[in-house]
Amino acid sequence: EENKKADTWLPSLVTDTPQEGFELAIKLSRMGVKSTQPNKEILFRERAEYSQDAKALIHASEVIAVHFQTVAEANDYWK
Amino acid sequence: EENKKADTWLPSLVTDTPQEGFELAIKLSRMGVKSTQPNKEILFRERAEYSQDAKALIHASEVIAVHFQTVAEANDYWK
Amino acid sequence: EENKKADTWLPSLVTDTPQEGFELAIKLSRMGVKSTQPNKEILFRERAEYSQDAKALIHASEVIAVHFQTVAEANDYWK
Amino acid sequence: EENKKADTWLPSLVTDTPQEGFELAIKLSRMGVKSTQPNKEILFRERAEYSQDAKALIHASEVIAVHFQTVAEANDYWK
Amino acid sequence: EENKKADTWLPSLVTDTPQEGFELAIKLSRMGVKSTQPNKEILFRERAEYSQDAKALIHASEVIAVHFQTVAEANDYWK
Amino acid sequence: EENKKADTWLPSLVTDTPQEGFELAIKLSRMGVKSTQPNKEILFRERAEYSQDAKALIHASEVIAVHFQTVAEANDYWK
Repeated sequence: EENKKADTWLPSLVTDTPQEGFELAIKLSRMGVKSTQPNKEILFRERAEYSQDAKALIHASEVIAVHFQTVAEANDYWK
Repeated sequence: EENKKADTWLPSLVTDTPQEGFELAIKLSRMGVKSTQPNKEILFRERAEYSQDAKALIHASEVIAVHFQTVAEANDYWK
Repeated sequence: EENKKADTWLPSLVTDTPQEGFELAIKLSRMGVKSTQPNKEILFRERAEYSQDAKALIHASEVIAVHFQTVAEANDYWK
Repeated sequence: EENKKADTWLPSLVTDTPQEGFELAIKLSRMGVKSTQPNKEILFRERAEYSQDAKALIHASEVIAVHFQTVAEANDYWK
Repeated sequence: EENKKADTWLPSLVTDTPQEGFELAIKLSRMGVKSTQPNKEILFRERAEYSQDAKALIHASEVIAVHFQTVAEANDYWK
Repeated sequence: EENKKADTWLPSLVTDTPQEGFELAIKLSRMGVKSTQPNKEILFRERAEYSQDAKALIHASEVIAVHFQTVAEANDYWK
């Protein structure tokens, strides 16, 4: 039940503002983690761990950066 | 027999929705791992291990992000 | 209160100069870290740690590089 | 004799299908490793090692993902 | 005083040759590190350390590669 | 004398074939390492080390992949 793939969570890459695009990039990063570990308990335990680890925080920021490239391109950089 | 390359598993990069594109990106990430380690037993053992490791989960999410860039571009960002 | 997402911190990706674009890339990198660890105390403690670690410094520089690609593209490379 | 650079192994980035493009990306990843370590014995020893290491498998999948971006672009995403 | 952000160090991404573009990419990589650790003493100490570490050297080379993509695009690949 | 920046080593990103482009990507990766550690003795010692380390080999292959993207784009994918 933790992994209802049928649910729509990504209807579009279009957002109104760059900041909402950044938040979508964060969501995509987390869904990437969740797809590998759908168990919520383990997921929260691991998130608690890496959110206190400097190197893991930087790595998480990198994944967001890669997704933000995609979202920004999808929105023509909100120009 | 674990590595039947003749089987078609990637007929197209085109998907109907962004979310299906994200799922294709997950599949591409896994096929990348499988191409290096085609033995299913070892593959499942290792997946069980890294799915409980915070840093590996973030790295797996990064690979998905890189593939999602490709899939999104292939679909003109579903615009 | 440390995580007021309603606040606008990213109104646009457009900057006047490449250097301001680089500073925006730094900001995006830090907001990526902050989104994973919104607690300022832990954030500052971890930043103090990784800012003295050679490998973490290089990784932080990489995240900036990825964001700088996005910002540069958004500004048509300030040509 | 392990490093005959004169041999043609990459005549083109064009492939008939996305799946063949993925296989080319795998080949490019391996040639990148081989270029740094042309000695086949060491190469096979190391490949045996990292193919059983969860984190190395994910990293190998990332290199394939980066190359697949290039190959997909070269083929106009097989559209 | 080590961090005078008002100083102009990046007036343009345009360079005369690919090689000067590569040198600009090196500069951008270092400025990314410096932005996280502006203290010159610590910076030089850490640079001394990672410049003797094989894995850190490869990672530093990766950051340069990402910036070189941006600089090359800004210069239309010096075609 | 190990770091004669005045020497021209990158006159162009254009190559005749994809394979020569791949070799240029390898050269760019190495020049990135060399720019951080210009001392040849240390450079060769470290290269000897990482060329026998599975994870470093994969990372080196990744840097080549990023540069190959740039070189391929510069050559319009040799189409």
